[in-house]
Amino acid sequence: MSDSRSDKGTRLARGVQKLLHDMGYDSLMEVKLRIRRRVDVMGINEKGRIIIVEVKSGPADYRVDEKWSEYLQFCDEFYFAVDAEFPQDLLPDKHGLIIADAFGGAIARTSADFNLNAARRRNVTLRFARIAARRLLETENPIKEKFNVF
Amino acid sequence: MSDSRSDKGTRLARGVQKLLHDMGYDSLMEVKLRIRRRVDVMGINEKGRIIIVEVKSGPADYRVDEKWSEYLQFCDEFYFAVDAEFPQDLLPDKHGLIIADAFGGAIARTSADFNLNAARRRNVTLRFARIAARRLLETENPIKEKFNVF
Repeated sequence: MSDSRSDKGTRLARGVQKLLHDMGYDSLMEVKLRIRRRVDVMGINEKGRIIIVEVKSGPADYRVDEKWSEYLQFCDEFYFAVDAEFPQDLLPDKHGLIIADAFGGAIARTSADFNLNAARRRNVTLRFARIAARRLLETENPIKEKFNVF
Repeated sequence: MSDSRSDKGTRLARGVQKLLHDMGYDSLMEVKLRIRRRVDVMGINEKGRIIIVEVKSGPADYRVDEKWSEYLQFCDEFYFAVDAEFPQDLLPDKHGLIIADAFGGAIARTSADFNLNAARRRNVTLRFARIAARRLLETENPIKEKFNVF
């Protein structure tokens, strides 16, 4: 989703998180990589495997955004996630594909295995860990100033 | 805190999280290790260093609980955290010490550097990442059934 606040994109991302959960992956929305790109959904399983999902709310969203090609080097599997109405011919057919709605999704085409290298896996996992903990703490302490002021 | 729902323990743990935040560590409460022990607070910084903090709400809490010695092998630094009234003579003087209240804390004695080995660091970081993401998702989706029923 090029606009991270797109309602439709957020709904699809939730469905993707539900699917990843069922696949044994814990996931986060909007994870910023070292390259300063922010991936829509990132999942990690108990073996440490990393899935990145790029959510496309519609054809226009896909056409304007070429960032996704940079994500392949930061994951073991990469998927586009679109809803059932999306014209799938637009998408490159060599990448993974998830058909999602707000409540779940299914894998329509499996991703290649990009076999993330060890140093990068460590870096991505650490980022994921820190972002998740920070967001949780902010959620638990709605008065954010409490943590910024001191 | 032997009883994880001890109000005082939770307040001190919050203060510890505040201190860790100021030190550049993102942290979580109650992180379950592979050995099925649950540490009170775990922090991780941008270099991947791991701090474990054992919160002691009072002398009785310290006396009944010997689990902490098993934590040393899962972190780079280990601290006890107590409030200003706690009789510090009770605590082993070779370990790190944090004096905390509900709003922050200070390091009274620095921890040794346990230099966590790489495999274990990977494992601990991954657990931290997945626990944080799962809690965040549950917080964002208060109707947990949504994620369990399907």
